[in-house]
Amino acid sequence: MPITIEHVRAAADRLRSLAQRTPVLTSRAIDDRAGASVFLKCENLQRVGAFKFRGAMNAVLLLSDDERARGVVTHSSGNHAQAIALAGRLAGVPACVVMPRTAPEVKRRATEGYGASVVSCEPTLADREATVSRLIEQHGYTLIHPFDDWRVIAGAGTAALELIEQAGPLDVLLAPVGGGGLMAGTCLAASGESPGTRLVGVEPSRADDARRSLESGTILPSDDPKTVADGLRTCLGARPFAVLRRHLERIVTADEAEILEAMRFVWERVNLIVEPSSAVPVAALLNGTVPEVAGKRVGVILTGGNVDLDPMFQALAERWLVPGAR
Amino acid sequence: MPITIEHVRAAADRLRSLAQRTPVLTSRAIDDRAGASVFLKCENLQRVGAFKFRGAMNAVLLLSDDERARGVVTHSSGNHAQAIALAGRLAGVPACVVMPRTAPEVKRRATEGYGASVVSCEPTLADREATVSRLIEQHGYTLIHPFDDWRVIAGAGTAALELIEQAGPLDVLLAPVGGGGLMAGTCLAASGESPGTRLVGVEPSRADDARRSLESGTILPSDDPKTVADGLRTCLGARPFAVLRRHLERIVTADEAEILEAMRFVWERVNLIVEPSSAVPVAALLNGTVPEVAGKRVGVILTGGNVDLDPMFQALAERWLVPGAR
Repeated sequence: MPITIEHVRAAADRLRSLAQRTPVLTSRAIDDRAGASVFLKCENLQRVGAFKFRGAMNAVLLLSDDERARGVVTHSSGNHAQAIALAGRLAGVPACVVMPRTAPEVKRRATEGYGASVVSCEPTLADREATVSRLIEQHGYTLIHPFDDWRVIAGAGTAALELIEQAGPLDVLLAPVGGGGLMAGTCLAASGESPGTRLVGVEPSRADDARRSLESGTILPSDDPKTVADGLRTCLGARPFAVLRRHLERIVTADEAEILEAMRFVWERVNLIVEPSSAVPVAALLNGTVPEVAGKRVGVILTGGNVDLDPMFQALAERWLVPGAR
Repeated sequence: MPITIEHVRAAADRLRSLAQRTPVLTSRAIDDRAGASVFLKCENLQRVGAFKFRGAMNAVLLLSDDERARGVVTHSSGNHAQAIALAGRLAGVPACVVMPRTAPEVKRRATEGYGASVVSCEPTLADREATVSRLIEQHGYTLIHPFDDWRVIAGAGTAALELIEQAGPLDVLLAPVGGGGLMAGTCLAASGESPGTRLVGVEPSRADDARRSLESGTILPSDDPKTVADGLRTCLGARPFAVLRRHLERIVTADEAEILEAMRFVWERVNLIVEPSSAVPVAALLNGTVPEVAGKRVGVILTGGNVDLDPMFQALAERWLVPGAR
């Protein structure tokens, strides 16, 4: 393994004054339903609203002076886009994000709002890679991949490191698995800091490529999976795969109805806004899908909170902002 | 004044193992818009999702053995109903809540879910008071009023006490004003603990009875005000009025559009679910309505997070739980 717990600890030092030390919350409602003591690491309260800031910032801080001057590029229409944009701005490093032209306008504007330049591509893997390659050739940018990058994995692992410091010893630690960067960082952090902790990944059952890949011993691609958990539609990366094979106890899955019910449970009973991807491990806990958690101390990384709130606020505005409304 | 900072401190000791010490969060997005350093005391993360638990629990703990055996009664269709229900359950004290028969079924079930009995009344002040009086006569219950009660005011003040401990010295402290119990407790806590802190109340402009009452020097009732901030529709109580006259610098107001915009701002940028009442002081800050806050350290009590989430989750379910949905 090219990186270890020491790389995660170094990332934590590097991020100390830049990333939020997000709170760890508990909820009696979740504990009652799960039959366990659950500790929620609130990365939805992280900068840019997601753990992605940790990996992006760590990677930008590890650039050489020459690389910093030339700038960075990535491809993402999700939280990593805003994370790279903010990390670039904070470090004074030019950042460029390649986004499919079908990405929501709001994502594009948010990324530009943090000061990155956005380049559109066709919504195909081929054109995305061609566009990134062309930009690297033209500008000398350094690529910071959203998850298949050791600097990003080490940064992501700092969330679990903090969680263990804040909550104390954990019997089980759960995180969602998309590209696998967070779960890989979590594995490195926990196996170094708290070797007895069982590590369990959770995927949407409609996007269970990591589960199938770990079972077969080779990365099996996913084919544009249809799941509400938009952060988990990506295919497992090679570097995360290598870490997960070694450290992960298992992967369990949650279906779409379970994911939405868990998301609503966190919104309603904990009063935190979490995005569907964050609700995936909560869904597994609430539905008894993770074996042997009864009475145990279970950590969960709530990965982010970026959700389109239009339906909620349109309903409220219709009711309250019409003249003469009740 | 029959109570002082010492009563608030005693309440804090009493609540230590029962109430959550809720986190204080900061948000660069809010700071940038307000032009100040803003500290959010997250009582939406309190038990029952609102600061109301503090006052209810403190009042129940101050009952005599005889009063405990006979039980308590209150009237509320809001957060105080669930707060009294949970406080009663935790202390082993029977609790009865009088609710108008027009109250949402979900509020009734939540209150019963915490173990209180619910008695319906007509949605009029006269029938509510008659029903409470009849129950007191029949069962010997002790009334715990939602805000016009010194035990409740002292309990509510513990949120500000913690905020000052957690955030350090504050130049300004903001809270919404409905019945005035929270603002009165906040005044007592801050004037004792941090005498230089300016105390500012915020009301919906459609429910500005406290502002008008303080200006005229006598309590002017509100007439069923129509505001989205459902927790702030009540009229100022006599005991809170006495405290506010002495300690409050001023009351400012926010209109309905400002309240909804501030609520969305907190949901979207901080990833916390706050109810409209909580958004009222935030609205005043975001719109520059509070004088002389530029560059200051400003505390805000986010009072609660109980909101009907049906519109949001109906939209998500329609999109994702239909067979074959994208």
